[in-house]
Amino acid sequence: MSFELSLNTGTTPNLSLQEAVEAVAGAGLGHIGPWRHLLEQAGGEEKAAEIISAAGLKATTLCRGGFLTGSDPEARRAAIESNRAAIRETAAIGAGELIMVVGGLPAAAHVIGGEGDRQDKDIVAARQRVAEGIAELAPYAAEHNVRLVLEPLHPMYTADRAVLSTLGEALDLAAPYPAETVGVVVDTFHVWWDPQLKQQIERAGRENRIASYQICDFNLPIAADALKSRGMMGDGYVDFPTISRWVAEAGYTGPVEVEIFNVEINNQDASLTVETMKSRYAELVLPALEEGAAKAQNPAGERISFGI
Amino acid sequence: MSFELSLNTGTTPNLSLQEAVEAVAGAGLGHIGPWRHLLEQAGGEEKAAEIISAAGLKATTLCRGGFLTGSDPEARRAAIESNRAAIRETAAIGAGELIMVVGGLPAAAHVIGGEGDRQDKDIVAARQRVAEGIAELAPYAAEHNVRLVLEPLHPMYTADRAVLSTLGEALDLAAPYPAETVGVVVDTFHVWWDPQLKQQIERAGRENRIASYQICDFNLPIAADALKSRGMMGDGYVDFPTISRWVAEAGYTGPVEVEIFNVEINNQDASLTVETMKSRYAELVLPALEEGAAKAQNPAGERISFGI
Repeated sequence: MSFELSLNTGTTPNLSLQEAVEAVAGAGLGHIGPWRHLLEQAGGEEKAAEIISAAGLKATTLCRGGFLTGSDPEARRAAIESNRAAIRETAAIGAGELIMVVGGLPAAAHVIGGEGDRQDKDIVAARQRVAEGIAELAPYAAEHNVRLVLEPLHPMYTADRAVLSTLGEALDLAAPYPAETVGVVVDTFHVWWDPQLKQQIERAGRENRIASYQICDFNLPIAADALKSRGMMGDGYVDFPTISRWVAEAGYTGPVEVEIFNVEINNQDASLTVETMKSRYAELVLPALEEGAAKAQNPAGERISFGI
Repeated sequence: MSFELSLNTGTTPNLSLQEAVEAVAGAGLGHIGPWRHLLEQAGGEEKAAEIISAAGLKATTLCRGGFLTGSDPEARRAAIESNRAAIRETAAIGAGELIMVVGGLPAAAHVIGGEGDRQDKDIVAARQRVAEGIAELAPYAAEHNVRLVLEPLHPMYTADRAVLSTLGEALDLAAPYPAETVGVVVDTFHVWWDPQLKQQIERAGRENRIASYQICDFNLPIAADALKSRGMMGDGYVDFPTISRWVAEAGYTGPVEVEIFNVEINNQDASLTVETMKSRYAELVLPALEEGAAKAQNPAGERISFGI
C-alpha cells in the first residue's frame, strides 16, 4: 500500500483524540496525525498510543516541535526541553515523524502569544539559531528513531511563525544530517507558489528527505485570522494534480495528510469533513500520485495514465 | 546626489497629481513616483509631465504595467496594448522606469475584479505567458528608452496579483534582455522574508538590474484587505538597515521610493505622512545605504560608518 490518506487533527480541532480516531476509523481510513495537546488531554502519550492502536489506526506524524528562534537563553533551554519531550511522544505513538515549525522573529513573538524582543528583527540571526537548535536536537531524535521534519511555512507567516520559508532552505538546513534523522514536509498550502518547487521536490526526493506530504488548498481572501486561510482541496488556487505528480515522481510513496485550518470546516460535522476530504483526494490528488509513481518506477517508459 | 527619497502616490491615494506634487515639493523632496490613473486624471501624460516639472520634481517610476497572465487571446492583446500605452506614458513623464506587476492565476482573476478561467490554476503555464509578454514588450520599451521593471510580489499575492514571487525568478526572467531594457525592483515588503535575498540582491547588482528600491514595512496582523498590510518603516518586521546595506553594497545609488498601502496612513494628512517617511528614512534607511555605498566604493577597506 502507498499514499494512505491521513487526517491531521488540526482539521477537526473540536474533537478529542478518541473522537478523531472514531471519525477516521468510521470513514474506513487507517491513519491519523495528532497534535500534541490531544495526547496530553488523553492522559499522556502511552494512553494516546493505546487509543490509536485499539482502533487499528497508525499515527503518521506528530504536530509539532520547533519554535527555536528565541534569543533569551532561558527560553531557548525551555524550547529544547519541550522538543525533547515531543521527540519522546513521537516515538511513543509510533509516528516516527515530528513536524517542526521553527518559529518566527523575536520581534513578532507576541503576535502568537509568546514573549520576545520587539526590536529584534534580525532574520539572519534567527535562522542561525534554528540551525543551532536542530544541531542540538538531532542526536536525541536519532536515539529515539524519530525524524525531525522541517516544515517551510508560507512567507505570510515568516514574521510570526517560521523563518523557514522555502523547501530549498529546509533542505539546506537538513543537509548536515542523515536523511532518516532530519527530513522535510511538502505542504501544498505553504509551497505551491514557489518558482523552485519542481526542482526542490526533485532534490528532496534524490536526498530521501520527503518525510510527509500534507495537502490543503490556498484560499482567498486571506482569512481574518491568516492562519485559517487553508481550504479543502479544490476550493482554492493550488494545482493539486501537478504538485502531487511531482511528489510521487520524486519517489515519495508515504501517507498523505490533510491539515486544514479553516473556521467553517473546523466547525462542521467531522464526518462531513472526512467524507469530503476522501472524495476530493480521490478526484484531485490520488490519480496524479499514481501517475507519478508509475513514472518513478518506469522512468524510461511511456507515462501510464491511471484514471483521468 | 544619490538615494533621493521619492513619494509613490500609492501612499497618498486621495491626492490628485497636483496635490501630491505640492506635498512632495512642500516637504523639500524632489522625486515622485505616480500611478497611471493620476496621469489620466491630470489630462494625459503631457499635462502630467508639465505638473511634475513645473514644481521642480523628477518622476522616478510609473506604476504600473503588467497583468500578462491571461490566456484568452483577446484579453492578451488588450493587455499588450495597455502596456504599450504605459511605456509611452513612462517616456513622456521622463521616469524611464515602468513597474511591472505581472498578474496572477486566471483562476483568481475575479478576486481583483478581472475575468479569467476559474479552473485554470496552472502556474507553470501562467509564468510562461509572462515570459512571452515580456518578449513582446521589450523591443517597444527599448525604442522608447524605457526600462520594464519586474516586480516580484509577496507570495500572499501569487494567486491574484503576480505569479512572479522572488527576486531570483525576476532576474531569470530579465536575463535574456539588456539590463537597460528589463530590470527589477527590490521592494522590502515583498522580498524581506526571502532566504536568498542577500545573494539575489548581489546578483541583481552584478547584472546591473536594480532599477528601483521601494521601501515600506510588513505589518501584522495581515489587513482585512491583504493588499493594505504595508506599514511605515519601523512599524512592522522588516530589518531595514540590513536590506538597505545589501542594496547599496550591490551598487545601487538611485532613488528610494516609499509605497505604502495602509488604510490609516492613506487617509491621514499627507503632510504628516511625508514628514514621517522623511524621519523614518533618515533614521532606519539612509545611514545603512551610505554605509553600503562606502563599502561598494572601497570594498577592500575598513567599513566606514556614517551616522548611527
